[in-house]
Amino acid sequence: MKVVRTILYRSTCLALTRFRPPHALNLLSSVPSSRRVAAFRSGRTSLHFRPGSVIRAMTSSGARLPSTVPLCPTPGDGKYKIALCQLSVTKDKVVNIAHARQAIEAAADEGAQLIVLPEMWNCPYSNDSFPLYAEETDKQGADIPSSTMLSDVARKKGVTIVGGSIPERSEGRLYNTCYIFGKNGELKGKHRKTHLFDIDIPGKITFKESDTLTPGGELTVVETDVGRIGVGICYDIRFPEMAMLYAAQGVHMICYPGAFNMTTGPLHWELLAKASMMEHGRVQLYVVTCSPARDSGAGYVAWGHSTVVGPFGEIVATTEHEEKTVFGEIDYSRINQIRLNMPLDTQRRGDLYCLVDQERK
Amino acid sequence: MKVVRTILYRSTCLALTRFRPPHALNLLSSVPSSRRVAAFRSGRTSLHFRPGSVIRAMTSSGARLPSTVPLCPTPGDGKYKIALCQLSVTKDKVVNIAHARQAIEAAADEGAQLIVLPEMWNCPYSNDSFPLYAEETDKQGADIPSSTMLSDVARKKGVTIVGGSIPERSEGRLYNTCYIFGKNGELKGKHRKTHLFDIDIPGKITFKESDTLTPGGELTVVETDVGRIGVGICYDIRFPEMAMLYAAQGVHMICYPGAFNMTTGPLHWELLAKASMMEHGRVQLYVVTCSPARDSGAGYVAWGHSTVVGPFGEIVATTEHEEKTVFGEIDYSRINQIRLNMPLDTQRRGDLYCLVDQERK
Repeated sequence: MKVVRTILYRSTCLALTRFRPPHALNLLSSVPSSRRVAAFRSGRTSLHFRPGSVIRAMTSSGARLPSTVPLCPTPGDGKYKIALCQLSVTKDKVVNIAHARQAIEAAADEGAQLIVLPEMWNCPYSNDSFPLYAEETDKQGADIPSSTMLSDVARKKGVTIVGGSIPERSEGRLYNTCYIFGKNGELKGKHRKTHLFDIDIPGKITFKESDTLTPGGELTVVETDVGRIGVGICYDIRFPEMAMLYAAQGVHMICYPGAFNMTTGPLHWELLAKASMMEHGRVQLYVVTCSPARDSGAGYVAWGHSTVVGPFGEIVATTEHEEKTVFGEIDYSRINQIRLNMPLDTQRRGDLYCLVDQERK
Repeated sequence: MKVVRTILYRSTCLALTRFRPPHALNLLSSVPSSRRVAAFRSGRTSLHFRPGSVIRAMTSSGARLPSTVPLCPTPGDGKYKIALCQLSVTKDKVVNIAHARQAIEAAADEGAQLIVLPEMWNCPYSNDSFPLYAEETDKQGADIPSSTMLSDVARKKGVTIVGGSIPERSEGRLYNTCYIFGKNGELKGKHRKTHLFDIDIPGKITFKESDTLTPGGELTVVETDVGRIGVGICYDIRFPEMAMLYAAQGVHMICYPGAFNMTTGPLHWELLAKASMMEHGRVQLYVVTCSPARDSGAGYVAWGHSTVVGPFGEIVATTEHEEKTVFGEIDYSRINQIRLNMPLDTQRRGDLYCLVDQERK
């Protein structure tokens, strides 16, 4: 039985905007556009409509706009070792940088090709600290020891680094920013935390990042030697649309540096990692979370539990809350296998819902 | 700091279609439409654009179309007892119906106001069985003992029933259908499983519902004496868009009668219930799953573990795999509380993504 997907639109214009390649629909060129009557063909079916009328168009893939791109080709055989550095963070930035470098070098020496750091690894997680520890990476000649270290160690060790996050200063604003470096030390991209952590659970946890920080304005996908990677930071993980759009861009993995707390951590952190991987959007890819180690004396006590989740919701590697580097074996071929077993993407119902990527045109 | 949401569109027509009330945007009537130049105003900002140009429009709520409606008013104080009847299912339809009736009556006698049944409670879960146990509920005078029983017992006991699912025959097609009855025995609505369970994990689980069943063509929200309820069936739970659209329609609860199996059950069932509740869309509402009891001798072995999950991801009530009625205390006031604590909906980024409800215009 073949499911026929029907999409209703109120206007020609809307439909024309939507049904561009690589959608299953093709505009019939035989219908002159000057008549402002358009027709679409999908397989053996063709439809005609007038502007202003309700349009019924057939598509086999209408669940996302623009539509999903296939998983990008895997580098090599798609197998490699990942390391999550669940770092202790102190008040001393110099110490934090040296400590992170040490952990990255040790992980690289163990054979890790992708190394992930936690959110705010160079400074305490507090609104007071962010401006003091911030680095102005866009500015020529600025003092930017954290990102310089990441670039340098990536090049020297020949590894890809998803550099957790640090406070970034840019044009007078502060961001919670993740820098991603390739194995030649080149900056592959940076992600500014898109959904700020503004939460108020009286007696348990109250935090308002937006008191100091500005949210980033775009999603971030980077091409690296270890695959196509989407990046989110901590609270970003709560918004499935973001993971869905990453999946629709053919990423192999989503990395979420994060610092969940002692209230939401136990309840939600692992759950969210799994859910992101398994459900959201095209999904069925690798999801990685990396937290700072827990410091019970800190103003903000992190949950720890850095975790690698595989494409079927299985835990590939995880840990408790102490400082530790978590190693996991990645195998991208599992993604395709799981998607063959359970082809969620083709089973979506574009006639009922459609997630629009406002950035990708 | 106020986040400005920017939405980009390629055409006037698209934007006009999108920015209808209750969006934060108002079309400036002072700009004549004949000029085909439109302008939008949001607070103190107004924008002008021409057809074909990229439009930047400001909105404070662009994450969904149509936009989210508030949680509907709670009936009474929003507190009541729910019962999930995790029923044993036999090959004898008459026995199944009598058995379900007994369980519903017992649950009602315990004070439950909402009673939920499992997926395919009147027949074995197999493609061979579906046509044999199906009921043609749309046809006058047809023999429909399962739904007749549900209506009758709902009225006699004065309870709301989300009647799991049974095979439905309609115009020569078969559906996996959930009937919802109000406390006067009236049919509140029916949900036909929207995403069919077609899965192939060699050596573990292979099933293809679409060999016999037709998927339903719409989402289902019902107004009941125990609140506004969205209904999905089993595999429907894997598609977060559906839960997000239910949440956007102001439901208090999503009920998923289901029959997860021994492969996906342990890994995904509880996880999906929690994830649906916590993350998807407006989310932060009650999610209920109800499975048949496990029968290790059956062709399809169900996972059990019927569960009520609360609006913060907490398990309100659950069970193992044996036959049992699970009782849980619902308190809708928790939904608003959680949404105040963690206002995910207003934190969404309509400038980056937008989930479109193709049915709701």
